[in-house]
Amino acid sequence: MCGIVGYVGRENCADLLIDGLSKLEYRGYDSAGVAIFDEGAIRVVKAQGRLACLEEKLKSQGWPTGHCGIGHTRWATHGVPSDVNSHPHCGKHTAVVHNGIIENYIEIKEFLLGKGYTFQSQTDTETVAKLLDYHLENGAKDEFDAISRTLRQVRGSYALGILFDSCPDKLFGVRKESPLIVGLGEGENFIASDVPAILKHTRNYYLLEENEVATLTAEGVTITDLDGAPIEKEVLTATWDIEAAEKGGYPHFMLKEIFEQPSAFSNTVSPRLRDGKIDLGIELTDEQLKNFKQIHIVACGTAMHAGIVGRYLIEKLARIPVNVDVASEFRYRDPILNKEDLVIIISQSGETADTLAAMRLAKKHGAHTLAVVNVVGSSIAREADSVLYTWAGPEIAVASTKAYTVQLSVMYLLAFKLGLCKGTLSQADAVALIDELAGIPVQLQSILGHAEEYKAIAEKYCHAEDMFFIGRGLDYALSQEGSLKLKEISYIHSEAYAAGELKHGTISLITDGVPVIALATQQRLCEKMVSNIKEVKARGADVLFICYEGYGDCSEFADSVIALPQSNDLFAPLLSIIPMQLFAYYVALLKGCDVDKPRNLAKSVTVE
Amino acid sequence: MCGIVGYVGRENCADLLIDGLSKLEYRGYDSAGVAIFDEGAIRVVKAQGRLACLEEKLKSQGWPTGHCGIGHTRWATHGVPSDVNSHPHCGKHTAVVHNGIIENYIEIKEFLLGKGYTFQSQTDTETVAKLLDYHLENGAKDEFDAISRTLRQVRGSYALGILFDSCPDKLFGVRKESPLIVGLGEGENFIASDVPAILKHTRNYYLLEENEVATLTAEGVTITDLDGAPIEKEVLTATWDIEAAEKGGYPHFMLKEIFEQPSAFSNTVSPRLRDGKIDLGIELTDEQLKNFKQIHIVACGTAMHAGIVGRYLIEKLARIPVNVDVASEFRYRDPILNKEDLVIIISQSGETADTLAAMRLAKKHGAHTLAVVNVVGSSIAREADSVLYTWAGPEIAVASTKAYTVQLSVMYLLAFKLGLCKGTLSQADAVALIDELAGIPVQLQSILGHAEEYKAIAEKYCHAEDMFFIGRGLDYALSQEGSLKLKEISYIHSEAYAAGELKHGTISLITDGVPVIALATQQRLCEKMVSNIKEVKARGADVLFICYEGYGDCSEFADSVIALPQSNDLFAPLLSIIPMQLFAYYVALLKGCDVDKPRNLAKSVTVE
Repeated sequence: MCGIVGYVGRENCADLLIDGLSKLEYRGYDSAGVAIFDEGAIRVVKAQGRLACLEEKLKSQGWPTGHCGIGHTRWATHGVPSDVNSHPHCGKHTAVVHNGIIENYIEIKEFLLGKGYTFQSQTDTETVAKLLDYHLENGAKDEFDAISRTLRQVRGSYALGILFDSCPDKLFGVRKESPLIVGLGEGENFIASDVPAILKHTRNYYLLEENEVATLTAEGVTITDLDGAPIEKEVLTATWDIEAAEKGGYPHFMLKEIFEQPSAFSNTVSPRLRDGKIDLGIELTDEQLKNFKQIHIVACGTAMHAGIVGRYLIEKLARIPVNVDVASEFRYRDPILNKEDLVIIISQSGETADTLAAMRLAKKHGAHTLAVVNVVGSSIAREADSVLYTWAGPEIAVASTKAYTVQLSVMYLLAFKLGLCKGTLSQADAVALIDELAGIPVQLQSILGHAEEYKAIAEKYCHAEDMFFIGRGLDYALSQEGSLKLKEISYIHSEAYAAGELKHGTISLITDGVPVIALATQQRLCEKMVSNIKEVKARGADVLFICYEGYGDCSEFADSVIALPQSNDLFAPLLSIIPMQLFAYYVALLKGCDVDKPRNLAKSVTVE
Repeated sequence: MCGIVGYVGRENCADLLIDGLSKLEYRGYDSAGVAIFDEGAIRVVKAQGRLACLEEKLKSQGWPTGHCGIGHTRWATHGVPSDVNSHPHCGKHTAVVHNGIIENYIEIKEFLLGKGYTFQSQTDTETVAKLLDYHLENGAKDEFDAISRTLRQVRGSYALGILFDSCPDKLFGVRKESPLIVGLGEGENFIASDVPAILKHTRNYYLLEENEVATLTAEGVTITDLDGAPIEKEVLTATWDIEAAEKGGYPHFMLKEIFEQPSAFSNTVSPRLRDGKIDLGIELTDEQLKNFKQIHIVACGTAMHAGIVGRYLIEKLARIPVNVDVASEFRYRDPILNKEDLVIIISQSGETADTLAAMRLAKKHGAHTLAVVNVVGSSIAREADSVLYTWAGPEIAVASTKAYTVQLSVMYLLAFKLGLCKGTLSQADAVALIDELAGIPVQLQSILGHAEEYKAIAEKYCHAEDMFFIGRGLDYALSQEGSLKLKEISYIHSEAYAAGELKHGTISLITDGVPVIALATQQRLCEKMVSNIKEVKARGADVLFICYEGYGDCSEFADSVIALPQSNDLFAPLLSIIPMQLFAYYVALLKGCDVDKPRNLAKSVTVE
């Protein structure tokens, strides 16, 4: 998971690459580098650490003056973050930036070692640079042919930006599985992993397809297949606002995105509700929806947590069995998939590698794939049989917040719709539920008004080393996301448990002062839940109790309380997620963590 | 597994028997009983439940005053725990306590029924008592001769303590396969299943060999063969302290139980395999097994982890969809259950409250319930439609080890059987798999031989505050149990993750020196797994790599290595669990934790 960018034109290339990379830092930021034609030769500068380190190095070594180059911001997969492992990687005649994984790199490396080539880094990418060299030196007709021969030899996922020392005014881009766009300017052209990197310069771009090769000069772009046959491409226009990619006055993207949730929710839900009816805007007919016998929800991380809530809702309202799976496990466990199955794929970026592969597997088995994604035109959106977009807008903070909430909102819509089609949910009940769903943004807004309160609670717990989240039913589903949020940005080792399961082992970790965040929004389970809370209280836990307003006296077992506005229990996850996100945010902030760019994480996971 | 004890001397026999049995409760505790000469006649008192129930009964009926008797604490194998099935069992002239199994008891019972004898219990033992009667009444010269004739007729494993109403000052002991010792006191003598029962009174004892008959009076002991020829025996001296003695020389029950796994596995699997075929011994026909459309596995804690492996096996081999649920969640989420569903309930104790309630719910919905339990006659065993017993014997340590392994073994048998019935597994493949399964105990034994190695590794990691277990597929299933084991006894906050899922958040907790235990026994996933390991290695993790022998060079990413004997990947969980259990054990030991009785935990969770 890396960001790549390339430029050829009349401006100072280094300036443009650095600026472009700064917009892609959400894709990885453990090292960065550029390769630029400077006085006729390829000059490579790279540095471990944030982009600022690279800028520093460029300044101290003399800012390059060339007009053609490639850049990279990295999230380490093969080899630790270091200067030498940073991209670009070079051959004698080549420089390469790469996003993805070359699966057979060991085999290629051994082949090249046998031919006398040597390697500086531990990366898979360097083998591509050297393999290009090899083909140039062994019969390739020209640079394009060397690329073509190389791509036929490598296996894996990649987006590549390539320079040859023989072509100082030319830049090549190619992709398989990992994303790459080609930006079309006036007297200048770009490649980039994502739109924000080019938005300052142009809104027009091509979406590169698998194994298409883009050849860029300042004057123009040609797209061909691996045999060199030209391909006609549609020019797309980016509608994203540059402003939307900035923090709008908030100290962090994460906080901004948490506060965007009421509008993200409205944007996603409102267009699909008309006169008390649900129009999902997908091609599936009610008859088709009614006939699904089994549903699989496949996703990773936070998106999978949305799926866990989705399972609960769909099974409850539509009585169709739902199986939720981690994508990386699903795709390799030879899942039982039938043509009558619906496979729901959830991914914010629409590029999550495992999720994409899982979707392809489901398609191969003839199941209907329905994607819930936030990025239009992303790989998953393009390949799914049906798409339900979440309209959260760009999510920049690595820890997902608004994307999760809108994924949840879509789960509700889907459960209602399936229930109606199956006849397990009456029209009258559906109307009432839809009405309540439409009212959620107002409740979200009111809960966001308590942010300072949650900050005060965070102050109390921010020094903890371990934390446990417990709940039953939908509260358990939610607590999994609450725990992940805290963990990924505050580095506190937190874990979520079904409240009734804790005593089968994990309760041995509960001692004096260990914080336990206990959700109790499900009325039917409240009594059982309180019993479980008393069990941890008896072991000395410091209990943060999340319930509805008007719960009554909980002083016997609760050390702190967060009270949510009264709600139908079914909608509680949409409300309780807000204090959990803000709790995680403030704990991380108080601990001095880099909230938007947590250690080791990247926004969109495009490797397995 | 049962415990037997016998006394002849000058003290109050009942006092001594009860005390002796209390030291043998680790051998079983579902019922207990004594037979004592009281005022010239044999008086038998027995009671279902713990030893305390027997004591209560003795007190209420009048404590016996005699000086010669036998006692028994039972772990049910044939017949549910009940007063009538408890030992001793009596003939007209005899009382017998028995540990072991009389294999040909049905044949003997039919023979005796033909002769007009009647039976009260469902046990194999009662046939021995009645057969002794028969020989006394049909030509035996004396009591010894009756024993001798009886033993020539029975087949199986046994340790027996025997009283005859004609010999009020005499007690007989004999054994084959099951253990029996003869304790030598001053004016008093003993028999017992194990040293701890006599340790308070004497340290001197004989170890009875196969088919030696011990005749005990207060004054002396004679040992003869079945023909009555005297045998010279060496007097042994017990050096164990009383506490260690109950643990068979092991410092903890947990370690003892870990080492009992090869035999527990054999006991559970062997009786169900005949000529390459599987006989589960349940009433379900092949046709019924074939027709299940959906399987639910419901359990808690470690038993649920066995279910997760079960899911993988059944889906793979029988292609029936399986849903695994935490019992406390399953029962309250209004699960979708049909009459065509099979619900597998797993519980060591057979008394787990949530699991029992989940089973009742499944029955109410008309699903077929199949219980996998270790305790005969437990609530779950009694109420389930079918029962598959695991023959692990009593598990005393709170952290489950051998019970898990035998639960796994049953999952394999079930998956094979279902695959055969469904036709998704060929007879030839099944025979090969059954053959491999039967060979597992030998491999377990060889892995147990490496315990000291695992201890050395534990020394390296025992100071960690957090730990992560990662794996893919079956390795992920296993790592969940590995993590729980470590967590519950060492109080280290460990967590298991699907290796491909780690980067979706939790990898932010991986920093310099954080231990990551990485399993890589699944060949097909090994390459992907190594990529994931390199990701954590790149963040500074201290990697303990668990793989097969002959993996090759892993020095690039592994800091420590545990190598398992080569195996079919499908069976890897049965092997890798041993080092994980021992790792947890030694880490806890080195941290000074109370291994057998971890903080806050209880053995059998009979509350919600």
